[in-house]
Amino acid sequence: MLVLSSPSGAGKTTLSRRLLESDPGVELSISVTTRKQRPGEVEGRDYYFVDAARFEAMAENGELLEWALVFGHRYGTPRAPVESALVHGRDVLFDIDWQGTQQLREKAGRDLVSIFVLPPSIPDLERRLRTRAQDADEVIHARMAKAADEMSHWAEYDYVVINTEVDHAFAQIRSILAAERLKRERQTGLSDFVRRLQAEL
Amino acid sequence: MLVLSSPSGAGKTTLSRRLLESDPGVELSISVTTRKQRPGEVEGRDYYFVDAARFEAMAENGELLEWALVFGHRYGTPRAPVESALVHGRDVLFDIDWQGTQQLREKAGRDLVSIFVLPPSIPDLERRLRTRAQDADEVIHARMAKAADEMSHWAEYDYVVINTEVDHAFAQIRSILAAERLKRERQTGLSDFVRRLQAEL
Repeated sequence: MLVLSSPSGAGKTTLSRRLLESDPGVELSISVTTRKQRPGEVEGRDYYFVDAARFEAMAENGELLEWALVFGHRYGTPRAPVESALVHGRDVLFDIDWQGTQQLREKAGRDLVSIFVLPPSIPDLERRLRTRAQDADEVIHARMAKAADEMSHWAEYDYVVINTEVDHAFAQIRSILAAERLKRERQTGLSDFVRRLQAEL
Repeated sequence: MLVLSSPSGAGKTTLSRRLLESDPGVELSISVTTRKQRPGEVEGRDYYFVDAARFEAMAENGELLEWALVFGHRYGTPRAPVESALVHGRDVLFDIDWQGTQQLREKAGRDLVSIFVLPPSIPDLERRLRTRAQDADEVIHARMAKAADEMSHWAEYDYVVINTEVDHAFAQIRSILAAERLKRERQTGLSDFVRRLQAEL
């Protein structure tokens, strides 16, 4: 379970997309949300769009691994697809904020690897937010204001990547994933492998 | 502090050398030993060669970070060069066995990252041992016998790399090093960096 969080505009979405394209062993957890579908967004690819009543029912029935309230909208992670992917030995990428990460960490413990992506500078952050043409000025200002609060949670993450240059930041995230897969406790079957080697000696 | 351990013949020495050549931020900890200098070995590059009395004195004076007895010879890690490198922000690579790793871990705690390198198979291990022309048959047999014991310590390491193909194993070790440097608690100055970003918002 790999969590990528960042203030909006730090480049997290681009990094997530590249990771998913480059590594067939990773799949994205698609969140449910009560916010309105934006132009270009596809149901089941970007989000599952639900109404408030449906969201409440999912939360009450234990169908969500975590949920959070952001800008008055609810966001949550459906439990079933995550559990299915993990059972099949696949890694799951979560594009969620610090509230969701805290809840996931309580449930997943050491199974969770969390990365916080920081922008190299504030002008860079603002430039990336303005490039998203569809957001109105007031939305950009709200996001900038929220960024200061989001950034204060960097110290709750395992790794911190500063996205000065996207190719470099992407290589760093790939290294983190590669290293985590080499951790002794994540390599199932090592006991048997070593026992077989020892038996041949 | 990065430890690379393995049974002899798993390719650890080649991997260490490549890491040192490719990464100027890493330096090798040179051990002291009471064993005889082999042809081709250089004092101060491969080992510091000392007699038993000098070794004992170093151990008693607290000049060694760890020491171990292997095949009747003593091996130890001088403390001063390691502390000097770490103070200057450099990483130190240790080519030591599981006995030394256990002692270093007690002293270094989370500062230590340990990697265990395994051979892909026993014929592969034997082939690599035989390629070292200078070892007599009985030495090879002793090393093979010892390999089974050494392998049983794989579970004391943070990471396990199976050296099926040296380029691939080397890339894996580089990923581990890159990821460890991205760990939040290893990145000094992040607090100040985030504070500066927040102040601009």
